[in-house]
Amino acid sequence: MRSPIPDYLAEALRSVEADQSGATADYIPELADADPDLLAAGLCTVDGHVYSAGDAGVEFSIQSISKPFVCALALADRGFDAVLEKVGVEPSGDAFNEISLEPGSGRPLNPMINAGAITTHTLAGPEEATPEARVERIIDGLSAFAGRRLQVDESVYHSELSHAYRNRALANMLRAHDIIGEDPLVAVAGYTRQCSLLVNVDDLAVMAATLANRGINPVTGAPVVSAKVVRQTLSVMATCGMYDGAGDWMTRVGVPAKSGVAGGLIGALPGQAGIATFSPRLDRHGNSVRGVELFERFTADMGMHLMEVPPAAPAVIRDRRVLGAGHGKVLLLALQGDIRFAGGERVAREFQERPPAEKRVAISLRRVSSVDDVARRMLLEAVRRLTLDGHDVYLIDPDTVLPDPEPGTGGRVTVYRHVDELEAGSDD
Amino acid sequence: MRSPIPDYLAEALRSVEADQSGATADYIPELADADPDLLAAGLCTVDGHVYSAGDAGVEFSIQSISKPFVCALALADRGFDAVLEKVGVEPSGDAFNEISLEPGSGRPLNPMINAGAITTHTLAGPEEATPEARVERIIDGLSAFAGRRLQVDESVYHSELSHAYRNRALANMLRAHDIIGEDPLVAVAGYTRQCSLLVNVDDLAVMAATLANRGINPVTGAPVVSAKVVRQTLSVMATCGMYDGAGDWMTRVGVPAKSGVAGGLIGALPGQAGIATFSPRLDRHGNSVRGVELFERFTADMGMHLMEVPPAAPAVIRDRRVLGAGHGKVLLLALQGDIRFAGGERVAREFQERPPAEKRVAISLRRVSSVDDVARRMLLEAVRRLTLDGHDVYLIDPDTVLPDPEPGTGGRVTVYRHVDELEAGSDD
Amino acid sequence: MRSPIPDYLAEALRSVEADQSGATADYIPELADADPDLLAAGLCTVDGHVYSAGDAGVEFSIQSISKPFVCALALADRGFDAVLEKVGVEPSGDAFNEISLEPGSGRPLNPMINAGAITTHTLAGPEEATPEARVERIIDGLSAFAGRRLQVDESVYHSELSHAYRNRALANMLRAHDIIGEDPLVAVAGYTRQCSLLVNVDDLAVMAATLANRGINPVTGAPVVSAKVVRQTLSVMATCGMYDGAGDWMTRVGVPAKSGVAGGLIGALPGQAGIATFSPRLDRHGNSVRGVELFERFTADMGMHLMEVPPAAPAVIRDRRVLGAGHGKVLLLALQGDIRFAGGERVAREFQERPPAEKRVAISLRRVSSVDDVARRMLLEAVRRLTLDGHDVYLIDPDTVLPDPEPGTGGRVTVYRHVDELEAGSDD
Amino acid sequence: MRSPIPDYLAEALRSVEADQSGATADYIPELADADPDLLAAGLCTVDGHVYSAGDAGVEFSIQSISKPFVCALALADRGFDAVLEKVGVEPSGDAFNEISLEPGSGRPLNPMINAGAITTHTLAGPEEATPEARVERIIDGLSAFAGRRLQVDESVYHSELSHAYRNRALANMLRAHDIIGEDPLVAVAGYTRQCSLLVNVDDLAVMAATLANRGINPVTGAPVVSAKVVRQTLSVMATCGMYDGAGDWMTRVGVPAKSGVAGGLIGALPGQAGIATFSPRLDRHGNSVRGVELFERFTADMGMHLMEVPPAAPAVIRDRRVLGAGHGKVLLLALQGDIRFAGGERVAREFQERPPAEKRVAISLRRVSSVDDVARRMLLEAVRRLTLDGHDVYLIDPDTVLPDPEPGTGGRVTVYRHVDELEAGSDD
Repeated sequence: MRSPIPDYLAEALRSVEADQSGATADYIPELADADPDLLAAGLCTVDGHVYSAGDAGVEFSIQSISKPFVCALALADRGFDAVLEKVGVEPSGDAFNEISLEPGSGRPLNPMINAGAITTHTLAGPEEATPEARVERIIDGLSAFAGRRLQVDESVYHSELSHAYRNRALANMLRAHDIIGEDPLVAVAGYTRQCSLLVNVDDLAVMAATLANRGINPVTGAPVVSAKVVRQTLSVMATCGMYDGAGDWMTRVGVPAKSGVAGGLIGALPGQAGIATFSPRLDRHGNSVRGVELFERFTADMGMHLMEVPPAAPAVIRDRRVLGAGHGKVLLLALQGDIRFAGGERVAREFQERPPAEKRVAISLRRVSSVDDVARRMLLEAVRRLTLDGHDVYLIDPDTVLPDPEPGTGGRVTVYRHVDELEAGSDD
Repeated sequence: MRSPIPDYLAEALRSVEADQSGATADYIPELADADPDLLAAGLCTVDGHVYSAGDAGVEFSIQSISKPFVCALALADRGFDAVLEKVGVEPSGDAFNEISLEPGSGRPLNPMINAGAITTHTLAGPEEATPEARVERIIDGLSAFAGRRLQVDESVYHSELSHAYRNRALANMLRAHDIIGEDPLVAVAGYTRQCSLLVNVDDLAVMAATLANRGINPVTGAPVVSAKVVRQTLSVMATCGMYDGAGDWMTRVGVPAKSGVAGGLIGALPGQAGIATFSPRLDRHGNSVRGVELFERFTADMGMHLMEVPPAAPAVIRDRRVLGAGHGKVLLLALQGDIRFAGGERVAREFQERPPAEKRVAISLRRVSSVDDVARRMLLEAVRRLTLDGHDVYLIDPDTVLPDPEPGTGGRVTVYRHVDELEAGSDD
Repeated sequence: MRSPIPDYLAEALRSVEADQSGATADYIPELADADPDLLAAGLCTVDGHVYSAGDAGVEFSIQSISKPFVCALALADRGFDAVLEKVGVEPSGDAFNEISLEPGSGRPLNPMINAGAITTHTLAGPEEATPEARVERIIDGLSAFAGRRLQVDESVYHSELSHAYRNRALANMLRAHDIIGEDPLVAVAGYTRQCSLLVNVDDLAVMAATLANRGINPVTGAPVVSAKVVRQTLSVMATCGMYDGAGDWMTRVGVPAKSGVAGGLIGALPGQAGIATFSPRLDRHGNSVRGVELFERFTADMGMHLMEVPPAAPAVIRDRRVLGAGHGKVLLLALQGDIRFAGGERVAREFQERPPAEKRVAISLRRVSSVDDVARRMLLEAVRRLTLDGHDVYLIDPDTVLPDPEPGTGGRVTVYRHVDELEAGSDD
Repeated sequence: MRSPIPDYLAEALRSVEADQSGATADYIPELADADPDLLAAGLCTVDGHVYSAGDAGVEFSIQSISKPFVCALALADRGFDAVLEKVGVEPSGDAFNEISLEPGSGRPLNPMINAGAITTHTLAGPEEATPEARVERIIDGLSAFAGRRLQVDESVYHSELSHAYRNRALANMLRAHDIIGEDPLVAVAGYTRQCSLLVNVDDLAVMAATLANRGINPVTGAPVVSAKVVRQTLSVMATCGMYDGAGDWMTRVGVPAKSGVAGGLIGALPGQAGIATFSPRLDRHGNSVRGVELFERFTADMGMHLMEVPPAAPAVIRDRRVLGAGHGKVLLLALQGDIRFAGGERVAREFQERPPAEKRVAISLRRVSSVDDVARRMLLEAVRRLTLDGHDVYLIDPDTVLPDPEPGTGGRVTVYRHVDELEAGSDD
């Protein structure tokens, strides 16, 4: 059987193929002369499988899509305080205001605009690194996100550098405000190098999937940045990733995303997948026309909008029954599904509203797939309170979805692999 | 056993109690004279259980927290196009720019600023409704969100109306741009009435929980707005709900939220819960000081940040084995957990990478808690392709997590309640 | 002989007649339906003679041209401090920013934008005046500027008032900032009444000439406002009178001016004349297209640009000679022309560089037309110093251009009508 | 006798000496370490006499005071169109907006802000000049304005250049918008050199006096720029010379002016004098505190406010009488003073309102000091019309204040040196 995913991607590409609106970026020949009809999409799951369709092998410069990843590297290398002191996290609102520095401090509003991205570029790597070493650190880091060694397109690099007046203006302004502490020309050269790295949609899909997978590259298994850094990076992408159309993107597509002027576009679906598209014609915001269309379709088809409230989960309590009788009598509460806050609360409520009459209480996790952190704490607190109320508490946990249970002061729990170990004479 | 939730809420309140920074709103005596030490928190689960702690019974005026709900009513009553024609969805960026109308069109940037909220006020109810009927529609609608009849605080209403020069300025400006089509004074009076509705933290928690529950009030069970309206409303809250601190809130708290000048603050945790706090002292942004602290704590404790990538879910494929032998031989793929896009993809990939040699293929959903829409479509597509490849396909679905399976053209599937019905002579 | 002025005006009108670009104001029918071909110009000299050409008898609403005059009335009635506390004097720079209030204080940037004009409207007349009395004060004041009783066009008034949403927005914003202290609707009604006063180009020329004549109506001779108020009013017109084109107007035309949306335009040529034009088609700034062209022509033809440096005046010292001999010998310094600072300085320098050897020194003012204040002080100081140096000093002043000469401590001067009175035996 | 001017200047300095508010510019040591108590004033008349008081010999860097002079050089060298294409003439309104480029075009709002000054720097000299030649042209030009060779302070130059990040930012932004066409670093280096020229108050007074004297250096007699360039330069100084306080300066001082960050301040009094002050402590706008106070005093004392309406000039018509009788009868109209537009109009009106009965009409200019351009044209037009009405017209012009009178088609005039030449048998 062939997986339906490639077919789906190919069909999605076909559905937008006819749209020839927009134009390639015109400020350097290397971008202006790109084949405007190129079209590709890639998807990487959080367990590391990559699908792609269209011109998936074609490489193009990463441009602004490098911004969230270098921001992540800066957060990882220097810490949150050092980065936030120099770059904000607020959407800039204004498109035409190409400066977007905070009045007074000169701090760029966020790391997704050029001024902020130049700043985070200078914050990657150790503080004492030379500019060359810093660029190496960034290429290493982006390569780690992508899972293969990325190369600089020297021709794009030189062409962009020779047109980089606006970025030099920004860097000088940043230097005037002591937001960056070095020669502005050097900072711009390094930043331009970062933007000239060559990627294809597979690379970008893996990079986005690394964000969707708590910072661990799902293909190579290498940890690139921490989950905390990922959370910050995705948050900034969500509010600032699409320039002045942040609100529009959030309502219509609803995933953290970033676009690049060469036609790339990525989205990260936390816990699920990274997605990338490539089509060089841009709209007036500088986003890929067909890329935006593809993401709107993905959202509609895949329900990946962050604000999409999932349909009601099945009841976390699958069954409540009393096993055995007399001395060995046990109240068994059988749970199911992925348990998060709401599931944990439901279980706690169950014990409050219907206090067990039996001395022995067993909670079966046999049908439970996962228990997240807050749910784990709530279940263990429920165990502790039951103990304090005089109950003997048991967990039936054949797959160890709740490892090392420690119910806290006064709590006590016995773990069994199978309900039979309760010796109550019955099964759940 | 007592539920740990009220204890948790009480303890959270205690942890912020000492902070007396900030000040009550000072523009009307009714708000200025509020007891600044009042402090409460409420939580409502998506299955309708309400917890609260502190001064939970104290009523206060809803103020700006009414904005997302009235925006939802307008979207429901007039449709997306009619509303978006008159109000944008972009964060305003600037705090001090109290006008925030699009140059030229005069369209308010979003429905969470006053200009936008006055506009959505005029868009609630049927187009031909009188202003009085419209206010009634809004009170009815907000009461439906809250699950009880809300009352206007007439003293707050009259006091605010007599100080509403800024809102009258906005309404006149909107009228000048034909964003609203009626007497600006009437619009402001209605909007002020909307803001003067009295609520307590329980009400607000239920209102937020209705958003977290796809628009269905989890306490009364009444459908208030559609899931599509909820998605739009939550999106706008996420990017514009906290004024000029949208990015800061998104990175630090990470839930769609809205604050009010009387000291209320709500957050909606999609699919989980609605949360509300109340503490009248405000920071310079106009948000409740201790409310913001409480939400930061809730996020840290409950892992409710939208960009928090969940830890890797357990493998969706719990087991793959061949049952029986010879003629009756069946390949059984046993799945588990809540299956979303990534799970569906994994199953499809399994059949592609390891094509079944057996003619009969069974997929057991016995340990599956839920299958979302995209996963359902992928599983059924896999069934169809298997059929086309010449297989006989079976679903073992004792709890009907995949009702009415229709694999599409060329596909065929037989559903059993128990694996024994396969008559292969084995069990999963 | 016919004066060439009317011919000049008529010829100027003919030269712009063909230009039909621009459009009448379209926000009320009364302005939109004005005959767009109407064309007139008027000029009033500072001695009160009025010339006009074209449709000089046609009346139109004064609109924004009322602003500088009402500003002058407010300055006269309440004093500079009271007015400047509420309205600034800075150009607004931005055209599209229709609000232009100082961030924080809410003070309108200047009295030539609507927000500032509404504010100065409320500052005319005594503080305790009723709104009705204040409107009467304004009509009286503008009538005094015009030299005849002006009437309100009730139809324009009612039409504008029914469309005055933007002005109501401004007035409410001003009220919110306590810039105005009364009901915003009442302020807007009064301001609209002020704008609806009917004038023709003769009226406007006289009004402008009153400013050009130190505040004294040159036709009626009535003092309307003080010279100090006039200076302030002309200064504000010079920097803010032409909206966002202030710098363009200053460089190209160079006279204090004000335009109105009904097609009027005035300019004041200090000490010379007031000029007015009328042509209803407006450019995108809201200024009369042909009015602007006419003023550019007037500037070129009449050399009325404020920054036009006059060609070098003839030497103030017409002659220096010694009259008589022996005992009666007198040094006679004969001056000429209008003496201002530079002339006074020249005379002082003459005595310093070429100290008189004669005991008797006479200064003849017979050929002097005028002596301004600073020149008077300098001449008298020179007299005083000559006295202290031991000279006897005489003024020959047949026309009393230097009345009541008081040279200050230690100075002494004898005034003669004719040089013969010196009894030196010669003539100048 | 000693001239009272130096005493006046010295007394003015004494009156502000005690004010120690403000602070020296702190961005480079050379300015920060200036002696803050230095205080000087200079005045140069339009006939080239220079007065000064206080620390008049102390040199300091010209800084922004170079801007209007280099703007004048650019206008002279490239023409108005070439300059206005690249730099506007509008006040920027906003102080904190250090960029002030027109949205879209990137054109600096005016040549008095840094972005505009860098632009005009690149427009000085011939288009093909090397940057070095251009700097030489500018030093030559400013030296011509000052009347002596100015020198660059190399230490200030190098110090400023090493801190010139903001100017580099501006220059790069200008380059990005193609407002300047060269290497931004080179432009900034040249501009910084221009700002580092050393001047004292005497130099600045002469430079300002050159503007006040139609572009001719009154000390050296050298023509530096044309009267048309001067008019444009003074206009821009009047509206943009004092940054965001343009309106405040215009109302309170009322002369075209420019300040520099080293503490210099100049004002030009068209047709009268140039004035300069020096005191290093600056207010928050960057203007010299005591310099501003001195100018306010000068305005009050010298009546030099541009909007100060001069008191009514004496009647232009000194006498009207009939000389002789019978055949030789002549109507003699004797004029006086400086005749400008208003005087010319008055004469024309005289002939219209009281048409001469006599065939012979004589106009005596014996008591007239000057006739400006428009008045000359009006007088000659009156002569022409009188001729056409059948009169014989004579001018009595002993001092040739109306040289080469050509009354135009149909007009004819006879010029006499003395009234006796009329042979009417009488005197005026």
